[in-house]
Amino acid sequence: MTHTRIIPIEFCHCDPAGIVFYPRYAEMVNHMVETFFLDVVGHGFGPMMAAGQGMPTVALEMAFRKPSRLGDRVEWTLAVEHLGRTSARFLVRAEDRVEARATVVWMARDFTPSPWPDDIRTILEAHHA
Amino acid sequence: MTHTRIIPIEFCHCDPAGIVFYPRYAEMVNHMVETFFLDVVGHGFGPMMAAGQGMPTVALEMAFRKPSRLGDRVEWTLAVEHLGRTSARFLVRAEDRVEARATVVWMARDFTPSPWPDDIRTILEAHHA
Amino acid sequence: MTHTRIIPIEFCHCDPAGIVFYPRYAEMVNHMVETFFLDVVGHGFGPMMAAGQGMPTVALEMAFRKPSRLGDRVEWTLAVEHLGRTSARFLVRAEDRVEARATVVWMARDFTPSPWPDDIRTILEAHHA
Amino acid sequence: MTHTRIIPIEFCHCDPAGIVFYPRYAEMVNHMVETFFLDVVGHGFGPMMAAGQGMPTVALEMAFRKPSRLGDRVEWTLAVEHLGRTSARFLVRAEDRVEARATVVWMARDFTPSPWPDDIRTILEAHHA
Repeated sequence: MTHTRIIPIEFCHCDPAGIVFYPRYAEMVNHMVETFFLDVVGHGFGPMMAAGQGMPTVALEMAFRKPSRLGDRVEWTLAVEHLGRTSARFLVRAEDRVEARATVVWMARDFTPSPWPDDIRTILEAHHA
Repeated sequence: MTHTRIIPIEFCHCDPAGIVFYPRYAEMVNHMVETFFLDVVGHGFGPMMAAGQGMPTVALEMAFRKPSRLGDRVEWTLAVEHLGRTSARFLVRAEDRVEARATVVWMARDFTPSPWPDDIRTILEAHHA
Repeated sequence: MTHTRIIPIEFCHCDPAGIVFYPRYAEMVNHMVETFFLDVVGHGFGPMMAAGQGMPTVALEMAFRKPSRLGDRVEWTLAVEHLGRTSARFLVRAEDRVEARATVVWMARDFTPSPWPDDIRTILEAHHA
Repeated sequence: MTHTRIIPIEFCHCDPAGIVFYPRYAEMVNHMVETFFLDVVGHGFGPMMAAGQGMPTVALEMAFRKPSRLGDRVEWTLAVEHLGRTSARFLVRAEDRVEARATVVWMARDFTPSPWPDDIRTILEAHHA
């Protein structure tokens, strides 16, 4: 299974060249991970933080292959590319424009890497690419 | 006295028209208030938050008179336009380009408006326009 | 008629106090104006710019009455509060949290204020509050 | 030689966990490349764009090793890690917190990869790590 979202390219994303400024893509990658946890995994970042849990991003790789322009409606997808005991690497793509990999670590209350809870692991496995 | 900073206009500030996107000006206004408290008042936002204090912005008015372009080095100034018992309104200007007014409220530990501490009030008074 | 959008509050909007950082509200106000022109008026900012037209925001007022927190789903509305010959002031609201007024000026090809085209004026009038 | 800048961590950079939100690091990487070209190479992005030139970022890798907090003053450095005929990979570091690699391509007027002009190449070579 793949988590999918359409992101319309708006004024706030674009640089003086009229194309998406690449740090805005990093925000979109985070949006994909955040909506995946909120809408699919069922663990929103708000309740996570309130529970003293966290899921820091420890690495991000992005390749920018084709530009996106103001008004484009870009389809983003997220899949789990690698699932570790306490971490996961997401493959996040925007069509043939952007290919990103974001690695996160699950941290339970003591702010050290912790094994994924079973319910989360099950959903991550179902989205393994 | 007036608090002054030069902000160089960079790629991240500019929109597809090649001029500063106005929400970036709101960030610059916040930068002026934040650096004023850090460098002049001597109360950085970090220690403030660690002490359970806060200073929310409750109103912002901005007039955009002339555009700023990539590469411009813009001089910003901040002065206290109105000083209340628990609040202050800052006049924040970017030359003849932007005129902004930001109103903040001082909140001590209980998250209700509180009178300015004497040391802060003294400095705010010294910057009254 | 009123233009409405739900904006979910995400990590990227929030500050260390866990509430929306006010410059992000300025981006949301722009989002409301931009989606109104794209989806309701039928003049997206992309084609506008390609046609050498523009619609700069010349003033923005915002009052922040109640905070929004990570995970909140906030209903935003936009209506035309004042319609001038070459300008319009939009009243943009986020429930009882934010009340904003954004004034824009219509500029045809020569980058001077120009009367609203008839088709746009008709739609603006239909959204007069 | 290494290009160096101090970036104070401000409210606008931090997330609800009180640490820098990683897309803001991507903006800081761009800031390092942009100030390097403006202040060291002597080719600001403004004149570049006015001349119809461009230097898109085609890849970005970032490892986030230690968090940065509100109020930290972080030293960033930039060096040229790899210099190609038409491209360069910059190693951009924030102490022991962030290690980033950004790859850019030089594009002359026809928007195709072009060999670095001699004056720019000389400076890039002088900053080879």
